Amino acid sequence: MSLIESLNWRYAVKRMTGEKISSEKLDTILEAIRLSASSLGLQPYTIHVISNPAVRQKLRAAGYNQPQIVESSHLLVFSVWDDITPAHVDGYIGNLAAKRGVDVAHLKGFGDMIHGKVNSLTVEGRQDWAARQVYIALGTALAAAAELKVDAAPMEGFEPARFDEILGLKEQGLKSVVILALGHRSEEDQLSKAAKVRRDKETLFSFVD
Amino acid sequence: MSLIESLNWRYAVKRMTGEKISSEKLDTILEAIRLSASSLGLQPYTIHVISNPAVRQKLRAAGYNQPQIVESSHLLVFSVWDDITPAHVDGYIGNLAAKRGVDVAHLKGFGDMIHGKVNSLTVEGRQDWAARQVYIALGTALAAAAELKVDAAPMEGFEPARFDEILGLKEQGLKSVVILALGHRSEEDQLSKAAKVRRDKETLFSFVD
Repeated sequence: MSLIESLNWRYAVKRMTGEKISSEKLDTILEAIRLSASSLGLQPYTIHVISNPAVRQKLRAAGYNQPQIVESSHLLVFSVWDDITPAHVDGYIGNLAAKRGVDVAHLKGFGDMIHGKVNSLTVEGRQDWAARQVYIALGTALAAAAELKVDAAPMEGFEPARFDEILGLKEQGLKSVVILALGHRSEEDQLSKAAKVRRDKETLFSFVD
Repeated sequence: MSLIESLNWRYAVKRMTGEKISSEKLDTILEAIRLSASSLGLQPYTIHVISNPAVRQKLRAAGYNQPQIVESSHLLVFSVWDDITPAHVDGYIGNLAAKRGVDVAHLKGFGDMIHGKVNSLTVEGRQDWAARQVYIALGTALAAAAELKVDAAPMEGFEPARFDEILGLKEQGLKSVVILALGHRSEEDQLSKAAKVRRDKETLFSFVD
């Protein structure tokens, strides 16, 4: 299966060439993100797709100076909604009803279930729940990029508060949680020759037959 | 790109046929999980792969009676380590050194960095960090399953404490966080004919050019 080969090919690239990826490949990766699974279908996040060099220079300073932030083709900043409000849920149900051609009343049970789930969480719990959904999208993006032979560097090492400030995320009702640089690995990257290390199947999985 | 077609084909299946998936397909999905990206490479989780019918009957009762738990071919239970200890980190560094054929001393800086990160978190924070990594693996598993035309139902709706009890996870130093049923969609599943609904590209992404 080609996905396994692609996953073996990929690694978290530390140094990139600055070369741009094609708009077709970028669009495909974004479409994979858009199609990602998300609990109850809510997709409670926004992704900033940043090519602007000046903005990326500022972000690099807030990202422990990691070179991929400026050496990548595009930097993706995944942010969660800073709260999940009743209006978000009603908007989602409205969208669902419209796209499936059913009456909103038909989805009342499902909507009530989502409202109940959201109400059972604190604001922080909602952000955390949303962050987990972001990581599904991140996993999907990494698979899509690898299949296209686009290199990627997922990064948790940055200062979210400073990212939020630089990108004006608070005003957009968002909080950054993880970033992903997309581009091409540089020959200078020593890790490009390192063996991939993963836990063995025998310890990672437990079979209950 | 075939992954986009596969992602469009997949949906969170509610009813499955009980038919078994081939061991080759199961192995490929598990290998995709094993190769998933994970922060610092730590993979702080274990996946139980459950085919046993009696165990799945018990889990169904702790899973809001969701039929996929027993109608699937295999149920995957993703659990995080209930803590990330210095021994875990040292074990990881030892594995890394062995597989890359370098001396452990060569990786001291990297090991110290991981110890520092782990120490900066509370036990709950570590579990939460680990859970996010699980969701990357979940996203990868969903992509792999879809490429193989294996149906999947990711589920957060279950009682983790009861799952932990049934599977003896506490004794294994684990806590369940999300489950994934793998199998084949049933014709009875009304959602199999429903249009896929996702947020529009225009609202999901924000471009900073």
